Amino acid sequence: MKLRVVLVEPLYEGNVGSVARAMKNFGFEELVLVNPCSIEDFGLAMASHARDVLQGARTVSCLEEALEGANLVVGTTGKRLEEQQRHLRLHLRLPCLTPAELALKLQGKEGTVALLLGSEDCGLNSDELAICDLVVSIPTSVKYPVMNLSHAAAILFCELSQVEGGGAVEMAHRESLLLLHDRFRLLLQEAGYPEHKVEFTLLMLRRVLGRAELTEREARTLLGVIKNIRWRMGSCESGSLPQEPE
Amino acid sequence: MKLRVVLVEPLYEGNVGSVARAMKNFGFEELVLVNPCSIEDFGLAMASHARDVLQGARTVSCLEEALEGANLVVGTTGKRLEEQQRHLRLHLRLPCLTPAELALKLQGKEGTVALLLGSEDCGLNSDELAICDLVVSIPTSVKYPVMNLSHAAAILFCELSQVEGGGAVEMAHRESLLLLHDRFRLLLQEAGYPEHKVEFTLLMLRRVLGRAELTEREARTLLGVIKNIRWRMGSCESGSLPQEPE
Repeated sequence: MKLRVVLVEPLYEGNVGSVARAMKNFGFEELVLVNPCSIEDFGLAMASHARDVLQGARTVSCLEEALEGANLVVGTTGKRLEEQQRHLRLHLRLPCLTPAELALKLQGKEGTVALLLGSEDCGLNSDELAICDLVVSIPTSVKYPVMNLSHAAAILFCELSQVEGGGAVEMAHRESLLLLHDRFRLLLQEAGYPEHKVEFTLLMLRRVLGRAELTEREARTLLGVIKNIRWRMGSCESGSLPQEPE
Repeated sequence: MKLRVVLVEPLYEGNVGSVARAMKNFGFEELVLVNPCSIEDFGLAMASHARDVLQGARTVSCLEEALEGANLVVGTTGKRLEEQQRHLRLHLRLPCLTPAELALKLQGKEGTVALLLGSEDCGLNSDELAICDLVVSIPTSVKYPVMNLSHAAAILFCELSQVEGGGAVEMAHRESLLLLHDRFRLLLQEAGYPEHKVEFTLLMLRRVLGRAELTEREARTLLGVIKNIRWRMGSCESGSLPQEPE
């Protein structure tokens, strides 16, 4: 498993430097910064002996660019779901894994995991969380749940550094998951599924598939199944049955 | 289980403030500072909403004072033992538990655990590590094992916050352990144990008892056993057999 750390619009260079240091402490190297603050001397000082990680960071202007080539997108949030929250938000943060549960899910998997950490003031917003396959939250005290960005990062890196890769299970590619998402949307629409429920159900699907740790082979099979169903419903553009992987 | 965080001669107020914040994030409150740097505005700013923890910290001038009333003393170190290290140093850092192993050891125990974190430049020294019952180390990358103090603290707090107390097992009091240590020293001397091996064996004993998660009842029983043996050897000052707990 390869970890890509994605800081979304970080505000303080000291935190960015600290995150770089914590990454190197746990053997991670790939850092992507989405619209970051400017990184100057203080950021470099906080990175300490991990200047190479900080200086090797890739800066991009949109989140989607940061996620290219990733197999699994994991969002982090400090705001855990309260019982009374319902509807769309229900699936935004559910299931909310602990760092240990996330590490367990990734054991033996092959692929790139993009770990998203939001800005210091309010974390990842709803749109950013919605595109994540899984959401992780550190079990903090209810009295003061707001952690420093680099502390949260260090706890996650420590846990993820325990993951043993080398397994033969290739995680589904992000492109396949996006395609699946898109095809499922078409399927719902063509099936006359109530329009006001489509987004909710798609988000649920993303969470279900994230939780299921879908392999590339499974993703392709599912794409085949959807193609088949849509063809049967008479709405698939190509007139022939798609070829399936087995 | 009650956690007492002991920072031994911290150098940077920002780190002390950050540690206070991470403590509150995981529901811990008791902070003791041994000969700390002065804590001013920056330290308070880093504590953020955990000013109360920082301002409630007790400042002492020696480590022994910080440990009064603690049942178990846990040291932290970034320097793990290399295979070739031998003799006295062998027992200084062995067994070196991971944070998860430490949490497992503390499940269901009752008592106060003092967690010692050394200064930013070189951590706990050999004398400080020697008085610890257990030693814990975070499994960092060999390429860059030196963590920021507050990052290491946050990782330990996160792990220890998972410990469920409420068990009926009362950990041995520190006074009992110190007494046991003292009586064992006398026993060795009176038994004519080679003098140059005494310190080594005492340190080993401390580690063995730390690993054994000794209860108060067991500590008292061991004290009784030693008293009995010493009496038999004819060197116990009181002429009568000690009363044992059962």
